[in-house]
Amino acid sequence: MGNNNTTQSVTRRDFLYRAAAVGGTGLLLNAMNAWGMGIASTMAGPPVLSGSGKGKSVVILGAGLAGLTAAYEMEKLGYKVQVLEARSFAGGRCQTARNGFELTELGGDPQRCTFDKGHYINHGPWRIPLHHQSTLHYTRQFEIPLEVMVNDNDHSFVYLENGGPLSKQRLRPAQIKADMRGHVAELLAKSVQDHTLDRQLTADDQRSLLDYLKHEGQLEAGDLSYKGRTGRGFAVNPGAGMNPGPGTLSDPLGFHDLLASGVGKVYSAVQDFPMQNTMFQPVGGMDMIPKAFEKRVGRHIKYRAEVQSIRHGENNVTVTYKDTATGKAGTVTADYCLCTLPLSTLRMVDTDFSDKLKTAIKSVAYAPVGKIGLQMKRRFWEEDDHIYGGHVLTDLKGINTISLPSSNWQKKKGVVLGYYNYQLNAIEVSGLTPAERAEFAIAAGEKIFPAYRESFESAFSVAWHRVQYNLGGWAEWNDKNRQDAYPVLLEGEGRVLLAGEHLSYLTGWQAGAIESAWQQMARIHERAMA
Amino acid sequence: MGNNNTTQSVTRRDFLYRAAAVGGTGLLLNAMNAWGMGIASTMAGPPVLSGSGKGKSVVILGAGLAGLTAAYEMEKLGYKVQVLEARSFAGGRCQTARNGFELTELGGDPQRCTFDKGHYINHGPWRIPLHHQSTLHYTRQFEIPLEVMVNDNDHSFVYLENGGPLSKQRLRPAQIKADMRGHVAELLAKSVQDHTLDRQLTADDQRSLLDYLKHEGQLEAGDLSYKGRTGRGFAVNPGAGMNPGPGTLSDPLGFHDLLASGVGKVYSAVQDFPMQNTMFQPVGGMDMIPKAFEKRVGRHIKYRAEVQSIRHGENNVTVTYKDTATGKAGTVTADYCLCTLPLSTLRMVDTDFSDKLKTAIKSVAYAPVGKIGLQMKRRFWEEDDHIYGGHVLTDLKGINTISLPSSNWQKKKGVVLGYYNYQLNAIEVSGLTPAERAEFAIAAGEKIFPAYRESFESAFSVAWHRVQYNLGGWAEWNDKNRQDAYPVLLEGEGRVLLAGEHLSYLTGWQAGAIESAWQQMARIHERAMA
Repeated sequence: MGNNNTTQSVTRRDFLYRAAAVGGTGLLLNAMNAWGMGIASTMAGPPVLSGSGKGKSVVILGAGLAGLTAAYEMEKLGYKVQVLEARSFAGGRCQTARNGFELTELGGDPQRCTFDKGHYINHGPWRIPLHHQSTLHYTRQFEIPLEVMVNDNDHSFVYLENGGPLSKQRLRPAQIKADMRGHVAELLAKSVQDHTLDRQLTADDQRSLLDYLKHEGQLEAGDLSYKGRTGRGFAVNPGAGMNPGPGTLSDPLGFHDLLASGVGKVYSAVQDFPMQNTMFQPVGGMDMIPKAFEKRVGRHIKYRAEVQSIRHGENNVTVTYKDTATGKAGTVTADYCLCTLPLSTLRMVDTDFSDKLKTAIKSVAYAPVGKIGLQMKRRFWEEDDHIYGGHVLTDLKGINTISLPSSNWQKKKGVVLGYYNYQLNAIEVSGLTPAERAEFAIAAGEKIFPAYRESFESAFSVAWHRVQYNLGGWAEWNDKNRQDAYPVLLEGEGRVLLAGEHLSYLTGWQAGAIESAWQQMARIHERAMA
Repeated sequence: MGNNNTTQSVTRRDFLYRAAAVGGTGLLLNAMNAWGMGIASTMAGPPVLSGSGKGKSVVILGAGLAGLTAAYEMEKLGYKVQVLEARSFAGGRCQTARNGFELTELGGDPQRCTFDKGHYINHGPWRIPLHHQSTLHYTRQFEIPLEVMVNDNDHSFVYLENGGPLSKQRLRPAQIKADMRGHVAELLAKSVQDHTLDRQLTADDQRSLLDYLKHEGQLEAGDLSYKGRTGRGFAVNPGAGMNPGPGTLSDPLGFHDLLASGVGKVYSAVQDFPMQNTMFQPVGGMDMIPKAFEKRVGRHIKYRAEVQSIRHGENNVTVTYKDTATGKAGTVTADYCLCTLPLSTLRMVDTDFSDKLKTAIKSVAYAPVGKIGLQMKRRFWEEDDHIYGGHVLTDLKGINTISLPSSNWQKKKGVVLGYYNYQLNAIEVSGLTPAERAEFAIAAGEKIFPAYRESFESAFSVAWHRVQYNLGGWAEWNDKNRQDAYPVLLEGEGRVLLAGEHLSYLTGWQAGAIESAWQQMARIHERAMA
């Protein structure tokens, strides 16, 4: 795996051989550990396959990330590749709304994005985690410029309507983390001092723990109390001269208030995998990725081709489609078919799949997901509140998060993600017209940012469960389905294999689509070589 | 303060008036809190001064950030401005070494930077914290493009030579934070369960605390034990299909090992102020800031003008200088003098200052500081280890941190900061030749990164205490000096005032220089208007 890494792989391997020669297996394991090779097994590149697909053909259904990946890699392997895509552009859910972008949801009003030039919202995938080496494989190979997407910002806000004694306050994550952990460190440090932990820990460990807690919570040297710290922010920031000079420290939030509010649970010791820094976004919009693929395999894509039926036999697969531009029907016959349509869409296609496969397809639910981009004529979050990117977390109904853009720093305007909602919230909000959704988002946002309403210029929203050809944000698996349906779907049938984020444990991520495509194309190739 | 914020100030103020009218002062305070106005008083713009400096002149010594700021703002106020700068370029310590940049330390070998085009090292200031609104005021006003400087990376490494049972391992901050906090949460959660905290906390608070600890430490629902979490990283990352499928969780580091290693103390609950996200750097190098000033006030700067003497009287100040290009002496007479020379340099200038002021100037020590940039022909930290920016923290002698670049993501080459050392370490390393320093840095770095040595191409290093016109990284204050010397220095003498990072509590930061300049130019203006 990882054909792009030949040089360093050899280097590493060489060292390991040398290490083994010198010190035996013990040292080998030691070296592996020291270099973190024990940890981290990441699908970092397409499978290295032997043999050629020359003379064989594959029809790929859908030009989302899975379809594009398969088309690109299978063509390199020698296959004759044809892609059928219902939309007039590639990318699937990976879309970027910028000026002129159009979307009409099923049964909805047409929307046309009117953001200013240079501004956009990634209303599909919007983040590339560092762990998603598969996605990063292509951004590197295609030289797609990346920039940091601020996914973690201790200087943003938490705003709870129902936060007990801390309700309706704009709290900074830094305050919450500092104070919560400070108070907890104090409590435990005093337990150590009171010898309550003599049973659990040796004297040495208790001494080390006390050292750690003093540092972790910045406790007072004398009485081990937590009295605040610079990391939570100052009441008056330090500066020049005598005034402000050293500045004025701020007072911590009380332990009882923090506990009663539940706000400590908004953050945890570390970001969950895969939400950790460093997070990326392509400069200019996430659709730079499908555009880069399109440049390489676009000539094989038939756009506006809505798949109608799939028939497969001993020797080939036949797919019929409707050209939605002309209304005419078309047919493609190929040796193999890789179907990357979302299951939510595939279930409506006329196929000769077995009942078992059809049942599996139908059993997977798709997530209702909504997003809205709000162009603001002034970056009040930067100018007034010194928040540069990241998320405002809130319990405001139907909002979940307000996210601030990680591009166009300090410029005049910016597009804010006004909500990112799921499930029932997403369904409820999706019943509104585009204009009503904007009003809904603004009415919530102005509770947190006073300049929200007056700064608003235009909106673009999506409810993925109402988007034709998707009918949901991503596949939603439960344990039962993972056990029953997942293996059936992975297996496919005869000359038809399925691929997409839905056939991964990275659901909703581009990496899931890419890595699924890598696996399933390898299986097609295996069958073709057999 | 903050003349750039007129619109939103009015808006806020309006709301506050309305709030006060409706609900009296109580509501007013409430609203102020909700919007965080109680917190955060940041010097966000130059002082708004009335009156004109027309007909008055000021000679500014030094074209670093303080001198440039004063020149720019005082010219706008109407003053005739002249700047004397010893170097052939503006910026002072704010320098960026890119191809062709030259530096010869006192008594040292000449260095000429040979990095590839597009690569550089900010060997002076390299970070702009979000809290430094003064610096951000000018990047915004001058439209200097910014990008995120990754200052916090949970996926980087900690590497301790002397870390007890965890010595010589490449640990990820995410592992340490997750495990340390997990174990601590478990310990405290069990204390709650054992009723050891009944005296300290009410039953309600204990319930809330338990909730919090379960979340903070991701404890097992049943026995409240910490068994690891996704945030610490997987043994095998999740992916597509059945293999890797859901991936394999990794085992936590043992509590005793963590305690005995002391590694938990490398990180704390929150980043210290001002190290928090979002951190910025100008695209292309920190010297974009002085270059932007230079464009506006460069015509008033006399370069290669080494200040020789300062004489001040009732009516004016006279400064003599040596033109180091021609060897000729020159004289400038002005109504006022703002001297921004580092105290380390000023102490050697012939002045007629009082003994009190001279003593104060001499009493302040300057920090020995060293940095080295290493151009690597391959971004092995990204390709092999998936580290994108941030710092590798280590106890390797004389290294302190190895920092990975936050620009040129996924490109071929990159410039790594090989060490950032202070005090005795900086003095020791600075005794080496440039080539020896590079070897020193590589010998350390290859203990952590196996590809370090083979990837190395060229180096550029600086030891600020050996740099002419600086003789140190920044002013180092102690409590006694802050009490005795600081007020004397702030006061200046007659028509001479001092400014620079040394006259702030933001020592070593550009914001200290800028805000000091704002304060001291206001005092000159006050005297001029009197």
